[in-house]
Amino acid sequence: MLEVGMCRQKNAVNILSKNIIVFGLALLTYWAVGFGFMFGQGSSVIGLSGFFLSGDSATYGLDPFPAGLPVTIFFLFQAAFAATSATIVSGAVAERIRFDAFLIFSIVNIAFYCISGKWSWGGGWLADLGFADFAGSTVVHSVGGWSALVGAIVLGARYGKYEGKLVKPIPGHNLSLATLGCLILWIGWFGFNPGSELAANENIAYIAITTNLSGAAGGTVATMVSWVKNKKPDLGMVINGILAGLVGITAACNQVSFVSAIIIGCVSGVLVVFAIDFFDALRIDDPVGAISVHLCNGIWGTLAVGIFGANAGLPQFWIQLVGIVAYGGFTVVTGYLCWFALKLTLGIRVHDYEEIEGLDIHEHGQIAYAGFSMVDEAPSALIETKL
Amino acid sequence: MLEVGMCRQKNAVNILSKNIIVFGLALLTYWAVGFGFMFGQGSSVIGLSGFFLSGDSATYGLDPFPAGLPVTIFFLFQAAFAATSATIVSGAVAERIRFDAFLIFSIVNIAFYCISGKWSWGGGWLADLGFADFAGSTVVHSVGGWSALVGAIVLGARYGKYEGKLVKPIPGHNLSLATLGCLILWIGWFGFNPGSELAANENIAYIAITTNLSGAAGGTVATMVSWVKNKKPDLGMVINGILAGLVGITAACNQVSFVSAIIIGCVSGVLVVFAIDFFDALRIDDPVGAISVHLCNGIWGTLAVGIFGANAGLPQFWIQLVGIVAYGGFTVVTGYLCWFALKLTLGIRVHDYEEIEGLDIHEHGQIAYAGFSMVDEAPSALIETKL
Amino acid sequence: MLEVGMCRQKNAVNILSKNIIVFGLALLTYWAVGFGFMFGQGSSVIGLSGFFLSGDSATYGLDPFPAGLPVTIFFLFQAAFAATSATIVSGAVAERIRFDAFLIFSIVNIAFYCISGKWSWGGGWLADLGFADFAGSTVVHSVGGWSALVGAIVLGARYGKYEGKLVKPIPGHNLSLATLGCLILWIGWFGFNPGSELAANENIAYIAITTNLSGAAGGTVATMVSWVKNKKPDLGMVINGILAGLVGITAACNQVSFVSAIIIGCVSGVLVVFAIDFFDALRIDDPVGAISVHLCNGIWGTLAVGIFGANAGLPQFWIQLVGIVAYGGFTVVTGYLCWFALKLTLGIRVHDYEEIEGLDIHEHGQIAYAGFSMVDEAPSALIETKL
Repeated sequence: MLEVGMCRQKNAVNILSKNIIVFGLALLTYWAVGFGFMFGQGSSVIGLSGFFLSGDSATYGLDPFPAGLPVTIFFLFQAAFAATSATIVSGAVAERIRFDAFLIFSIVNIAFYCISGKWSWGGGWLADLGFADFAGSTVVHSVGGWSALVGAIVLGARYGKYEGKLVKPIPGHNLSLATLGCLILWIGWFGFNPGSELAANENIAYIAITTNLSGAAGGTVATMVSWVKNKKPDLGMVINGILAGLVGITAACNQVSFVSAIIIGCVSGVLVVFAIDFFDALRIDDPVGAISVHLCNGIWGTLAVGIFGANAGLPQFWIQLVGIVAYGGFTVVTGYLCWFALKLTLGIRVHDYEEIEGLDIHEHGQIAYAGFSMVDEAPSALIETKL
Repeated sequence: MLEVGMCRQKNAVNILSKNIIVFGLALLTYWAVGFGFMFGQGSSVIGLSGFFLSGDSATYGLDPFPAGLPVTIFFLFQAAFAATSATIVSGAVAERIRFDAFLIFSIVNIAFYCISGKWSWGGGWLADLGFADFAGSTVVHSVGGWSALVGAIVLGARYGKYEGKLVKPIPGHNLSLATLGCLILWIGWFGFNPGSELAANENIAYIAITTNLSGAAGGTVATMVSWVKNKKPDLGMVINGILAGLVGITAACNQVSFVSAIIIGCVSGVLVVFAIDFFDALRIDDPVGAISVHLCNGIWGTLAVGIFGANAGLPQFWIQLVGIVAYGGFTVVTGYLCWFALKLTLGIRVHDYEEIEGLDIHEHGQIAYAGFSMVDEAPSALIETKL
Repeated sequence: MLEVGMCRQKNAVNILSKNIIVFGLALLTYWAVGFGFMFGQGSSVIGLSGFFLSGDSATYGLDPFPAGLPVTIFFLFQAAFAATSATIVSGAVAERIRFDAFLIFSIVNIAFYCISGKWSWGGGWLADLGFADFAGSTVVHSVGGWSALVGAIVLGARYGKYEGKLVKPIPGHNLSLATLGCLILWIGWFGFNPGSELAANENIAYIAITTNLSGAAGGTVATMVSWVKNKKPDLGMVINGILAGLVGITAACNQVSFVSAIIIGCVSGVLVVFAIDFFDALRIDDPVGAISVHLCNGIWGTLAVGIFGANAGLPQFWIQLVGIVAYGGFTVVTGYLCWFALKLTLGIRVHDYEEIEGLDIHEHGQIAYAGFSMVDEAPSALIETKL
């Protein structure tokens, strides 16, 4: 809902189709191989047992701890993370990617996500090192963000986004939907962060509070910063600020004080506003701001564990940095290879005329809003930005 | 949301009003008589006690088993099923039914749904026979589907849907809403199927996994089939494929393996694509595909218990078939009588000019999207299909 | 979603921004001071300890009763109430209020809400008196409604709403969203009313049933009344009727019979239809009907405890009335002072040309639905009402 609302109506069917079918594909992939890669027994860099959810609780490291958690519940919870990771990429490559190329990339990408997930969450080498990422600032968000970054670079910008030294605004077609999407994600975080406790105890509520304080702080600060910077409070920045705060607190949500959570959120809110400008200056076109939200704040949130966490200090900070670099390097290399292989074979970008006339008509033979009349140009009220 | 998005904007207010008020009416009806018909003591074909939620746990068969489940929780859960059953019909008769006729039909229909529900879920004659329908492939979905089928036949097709040998596409006005509706229903199934365990134990997560694997498989296969068949992946088929997979697994979700769940979902995904064409060939106009999703896959899911279930084999298969026929016969006869009585008295179909100009203006004096300009015709990109 | 759908598209960005950022601000305010004001130790009119969530369970009156409820969970639950209270005002002042003035008012308003909340829920003087308001018909809804009433009066009506003796309809731009909003709120009430039991026991389901029966009755009756009165069933009345029934039952949901719950809902459904006309007759312009829903039915629901509750009778009725008057007086005075101070300093109403051209362009530099063409005038199908 967030992504479709922030893109143009001529691509709405495409974005809706992508995101809903990728949920199904992610679940099937995760069941077949992903869960085994991520939590199965094997080496400290890849799990190699328990495919097709065939193992017992010992197979997936749920025995002796966290004791009493059924494998099935753990699987469902982790599958939701895997699907989320796939949808992060979707936003950054929207409005110009081929439908089939995206689906194939998503499946391969989930497999790599699961392999690297083993390193930290599956008891692999980063876990042994002491790397801490409670609910996935790096394992989920920065990994999704790196894939998104590589995809946006390999694909190139949307037609007409950058002209000479001008950044042209391409406004979303339905900000009501985008806001609804933000609310759904906010509520979803109540599942992800507190749920990562993997047990029903009092910490769950504590984590829910740190998570929400950071999201609230991120949204408030991003609103203020964009208000001062652009003279007007931008709804897109409110939304991305909230999400930035939520991503930022994700690694540390179980071990920081309330005040630290607010500080983490405030930094996230500042970061996201400037990150969006930064990627525009580099002409990396990210229609929904996914890279700014998930990559930048995923990294920031992971470092924050070394600054505000229970073991804060330089040693922990360096360990966090090692993790960030390891995940970043692995994801960029595998992501690039995957995009490159797709580019050589199937092709990854639609034809110019398809992009201009809309993916909905050309890829799906449908339009999202039959019966509404439409205009071709962006409204004159929107101002171009100079690079 | 699914139904309103898949219909035309000129009928949006009508569809929204129908679906939200029917939820209230269903709850009141279920409280007054439905719960008593369905779970009250009586004969093996109808319950006749415990009206107005006045009974205790023995009245509703909750004593001695499932022990410890409060009547109130059980009531709320079952009331949600009853309301769902009513909304299935709504989609198939949309865009041409009178508002008052629909409300009256819904109330009567819920009463009949509850009577037949007694046979299986209320410990009636089908339960004694060994008929198995864990979460309602037949009790809820195919019953709703039969009512929808009868309604669509008695009402006739929408104006302009079938011209000579051509099936004219009547595209939905808001596929973003339709997709949101699909997501809400998908999440709702997490309540319906696992909740039917009627206890908080480990099976809940197992059922959630079979349910989701089947939904994911249904969506994936329906996408592929429609992609091959029509050259383009159709968003409506993605959505209906997911729902088909969910309906298909509903009867057997507690007793099949993960692989069987995926097979059930795959079959559902194929079935729904061809069922939609089949009903169009019969000139039975079902704007949202409710009959294909709920009736066809409800039947398939019920049979699947006899193929993949714990007691799979011909004896169980025949029992399942007896149940399907009994529910189908009862629902078709009572549904037809009810529609026929309404047709003779109140009338069930709006006037032609009301249908053409929209139910919103004529039935409600409102429009759903004030301030947007509208077009009268379907976009040229949409291709007519030959029968 | 409810508010944005019921207003015009030219103000959609503004309404979305207001409501999402106010959630963040409410959370931060409630954490910093609100929870301490409402539940901290102090006098019987204001709590003065436990700011910044620094206290233990004794500080907030959670010890010895309700025993075993963690402070953190209680905080999250109460913070959701506080945020809700702020969004009630938002609807009544929509389409003409300055964005900055609304944010400042909301923060101050939450502080006052918390102080008065102490009186009843925080063990203050009204609790000692025996005032009963289980889940906030007065503490949350009528308080929000009074603030909304004062705001709507101080701001004045929207441009063009009342012309001579005519009330001009200003139709909402997206009734699909409004209906979705109603559904989200309905589901939210499953959290608010049963959650107010503050323990996981059987009463939760009982409360969920009384709550839903009343909401269903309210929606049904409001539909019928508006159908008879205006000849057509109005979707806005269906929605507001449901919400009215939910507000009406909120104070008494834990102590009335099912039949009483339905009666309470029926009265709410009648009340809301005539209240909307009443406020129009007074030229108090409330774009979404928030005052009719929350204020009128909040008062009705609070009185209903004295009529249908466990201690029904004149003594309880008088106590309820004392509470209503106390909350009303305090909220009207503080709310008026706050609006007045804002009017003198920042200004509370946008310029006429901003209101006419839309807050989205002028306050945010954005439009909500880029790529759709728009019309300036209300559709001719809508009929003006004579005062």
